[in-house]
Amino acid sequence: MRKTGHEFRTIWQKPGNPEIVQIIDQRRLPHEYVVHDLSRWQDGAEAISRMLVRGAPLIGATAAWSLYLAALEKSAADSPKTRVRQAAAVIRETRPTAVNLGWAIERVLKVVAQSADDLHLAARLEKEAHAICAEDIEISRSIGNHGLGIIEQLAEHKRGAPVNVLTHCNAGALATINYGTATAPIYFAHARDIDVHVWVDETRPRNQGSQLTAWELAENNVPHTLIVDNAGGHLMQHGLVDVVITGTDRTTRTGDVANKIGTYLKALAAHDNKIPFYVALPSTTIDWSIRDGLVEIPIEERAPEEVSQVYGRAGDSLLTVNTVASKTGISNFAFDVTPSRLVTGLITERGICAASEEALLELFPEFRKPAD
Amino acid sequence: MRKTGHEFRTIWQKPGNPEIVQIIDQRRLPHEYVVHDLSRWQDGAEAISRMLVRGAPLIGATAAWSLYLAALEKSAADSPKTRVRQAAAVIRETRPTAVNLGWAIERVLKVVAQSADDLHLAARLEKEAHAICAEDIEISRSIGNHGLGIIEQLAEHKRGAPVNVLTHCNAGALATINYGTATAPIYFAHARDIDVHVWVDETRPRNQGSQLTAWELAENNVPHTLIVDNAGGHLMQHGLVDVVITGTDRTTRTGDVANKIGTYLKALAAHDNKIPFYVALPSTTIDWSIRDGLVEIPIEERAPEEVSQVYGRAGDSLLTVNTVASKTGISNFAFDVTPSRLVTGLITERGICAASEEALLELFPEFRKPAD
Repeated sequence: MRKTGHEFRTIWQKPGNPEIVQIIDQRRLPHEYVVHDLSRWQDGAEAISRMLVRGAPLIGATAAWSLYLAALEKSAADSPKTRVRQAAAVIRETRPTAVNLGWAIERVLKVVAQSADDLHLAARLEKEAHAICAEDIEISRSIGNHGLGIIEQLAEHKRGAPVNVLTHCNAGALATINYGTATAPIYFAHARDIDVHVWVDETRPRNQGSQLTAWELAENNVPHTLIVDNAGGHLMQHGLVDVVITGTDRTTRTGDVANKIGTYLKALAAHDNKIPFYVALPSTTIDWSIRDGLVEIPIEERAPEEVSQVYGRAGDSLLTVNTVASKTGISNFAFDVTPSRLVTGLITERGICAASEEALLELFPEFRKPAD
Repeated sequence: MRKTGHEFRTIWQKPGNPEIVQIIDQRRLPHEYVVHDLSRWQDGAEAISRMLVRGAPLIGATAAWSLYLAALEKSAADSPKTRVRQAAAVIRETRPTAVNLGWAIERVLKVVAQSADDLHLAARLEKEAHAICAEDIEISRSIGNHGLGIIEQLAEHKRGAPVNVLTHCNAGALATINYGTATAPIYFAHARDIDVHVWVDETRPRNQGSQLTAWELAENNVPHTLIVDNAGGHLMQHGLVDVVITGTDRTTRTGDVANKIGTYLKALAAHDNKIPFYVALPSTTIDWSIRDGLVEIPIEERAPEEVSQVYGRAGDSLLTVNTVASKTGISNFAFDVTPSRLVTGLITERGICAASEEALLELFPEFRKPAD
C-alpha cells in the first residue's frame, strides 16, 4: 500500500469526508506512519510551515488544497473569495524559497477570479487541486521516463554491476504526489529490473535522507545505503558513485539550481571526479524571471533547533535530544545554490537539457521573451 | 581551569597517584565534564578504540602513557619488556588511520630496547610519555605562532570586521595536549585581541564540531557559530568565510591530507571560491613513506551505529536516540583525502609551506632521501 505506484498518494481527501484533506506527518517517519487531518486552511498553512509536508511539488499541492478548505469555510463576515485571497496571502509566506508554492497559489487565484459566483467556488477549487495533483503525477512519470535513459546507459557501461546513484535530501515520492522527481528514474529503473543502488545522504539538519528517502526506498525494495553528508566526496573519489541526481526548489532561467543546503558541495565533488550531476525538476520550479541564482534567490534561514535537536527512538519512546551545549549559537541556512556550470543536465517533464538558458528555452519556447 | 593555556591538559597523572593516568571522557562533552581513570594499559587501548580520546596527537600520547601503565603491571609470567611489547601490538591496531599512533609507539619501544634492565623501565617510559606531551605542547605553540600570521594578515585586510575562520571536526586543544593544531592560531589571535569568529562544522557522524570544538571555543570565550556540514559551501559563496583551517590525521610526503570525512568537500568549496585552505599539523602526522594519499592511505570504516545513534540531553537525562529505521544499511567511512592541489598551505611547527614534496622537504630536510 505504501509503495509508489497507482495506489500511493502524499495528499488526498479523507474517504467518506471530502471536506477533510489528509497528509502523512512526514516529521514522524520512519518511526511512525501517521496520517494527519487538515480540516481548515490554517491547518494546511501550518503543515507547510512546520514541515509536516515538504518538497516543492507537495508544498504547492498542499497550498492548493488549503485554499479549497478556505473556500469551504462558513463565515458571516467575508465572502468565500475574500477568505481564499486572505488565506493565499498567509500561505504564500510560509516558505520563501519554493517557487511553485507561489505558482500553485496563482493558479488557484486565477480560478477564483474567473468564478462568477460564490456558490460553486469550493467545487471549482477542489477540481483545480485535483488537477494540480494529477498533473504533478504525470510530470513525475515523464521525468522518470526521461531519467530512466540515463540509468539505462550507465547500466550498459557497467555490464551487470549495480549503477550507484547518489541523492541528497528527499526529492522522492514524499516530496511530490507520487514517484518523486529525483527518485522517479530510480523507481522506473528498478521496475525494469536494472540493478540500481542508491547512496542516501543523511541531509542534516532535518535528516530528510535518513528519515524519508531511506524509508520510501525501503518500502519500494530499492537497494540503498545511508551515508553522512560528509561522505559523498570520498565515495566519488573512489569510483563508488556513477551519477548524482537531486531535486531542486527553484531553478533560474539560466539553469542555476537552489536545492537543500549541501547540494552545491556534492556538485563540486561530482565535477572534480567527472561524475555526471543531474537535477530532476518539474518545470513549475523554474523561475523564468531570474537569471542569477546566487544573487536573486532568497535563502531561507530556519530555526536553530533544527540543528541542535534530533528526533529519534529510544527504546519504545520517540523523543528529541539536544546535542549541543545550551548556549551555542547556531546558523541554519536551508538551501544553497549550485551554479549551472556544475550541472550536467536538467531532467524535466519535456526531456533532458543542458543547464543553460538556451537549452531550457528550446524545451520551453513559450518562455522566450519577445526580445529573445 | 578549562581554558587552554598553562593549566589545561587533556591527559595527566592523577594527583597523589602517578600510577593512574587521567583523561577527559570526550564522548560526554559538552553535556558533562567527566574525568576517566586509566589504571591498566588495556584501559588506554579501550579509551583510544572507543574514542574517549581522539585526535592524532592525543591518541599518540595516550598510547605512550598506556605503555607506561603496561610497564607498571606486576606479572609473574612475562617480563616488563615483553608486556610493553605485547601491549604495543594491541594498541597499534586500535585506529588504523592515525599515523602518529604508530610514531608514539615506536618512540616508546625504542626506549624499551635501549633499557638495559627491567627495574627502571616504568620510570623511563613515564619520562618518555612526559616528553611526548611536552613536545606536543611546544609543537602546538609553534603552529599557533606561525598560523597567527595568516589571521593577522586577514585582519588587516578586513579593517576591523571579524576574521571568519571555518574549521571541520576538532583539531583543537582536546585533540592534542593543549592549544590544538587548527585552533592554536585562533586562540593566539584571540589572545591578541584580534576579532576572530569561527564557523564550527557539526562534523557528522560523531559531532566533534558541535560537541568538542564548540565546547572548547566557548570555554575560551572565542566567538563561534555552529553550522551543519552542508552549510560551508553556501557561506563561502557569500563571502562569509575568510579562511579554512583544519587538522589532519595523516599527510603524505607530497602534501595530500587525510582528515575527518568531509574535509575534501570543504577544500573543494574553498578552491571554488578562492578562499585560502590551510591544514595545521605537527610533523609527526607526516607519513614520509607515501606519496599518493588517495591510493596509499587506508581509510577506516567505523560502526554504523555512529551514524544511526545520536547522543544528547533530554530534560535531565543523557541518552542515545536512534534516528534511522532499524533495517537501514549504513556505510561509515571516517576520513577522506584532500589532494594537495586544493591545499593553500601546511602550517607546521617549523613554519608554513606549500602542500608539495619540495616545500615540505625544505622545512624538513632530514627526510630527503639520498636520491633526492
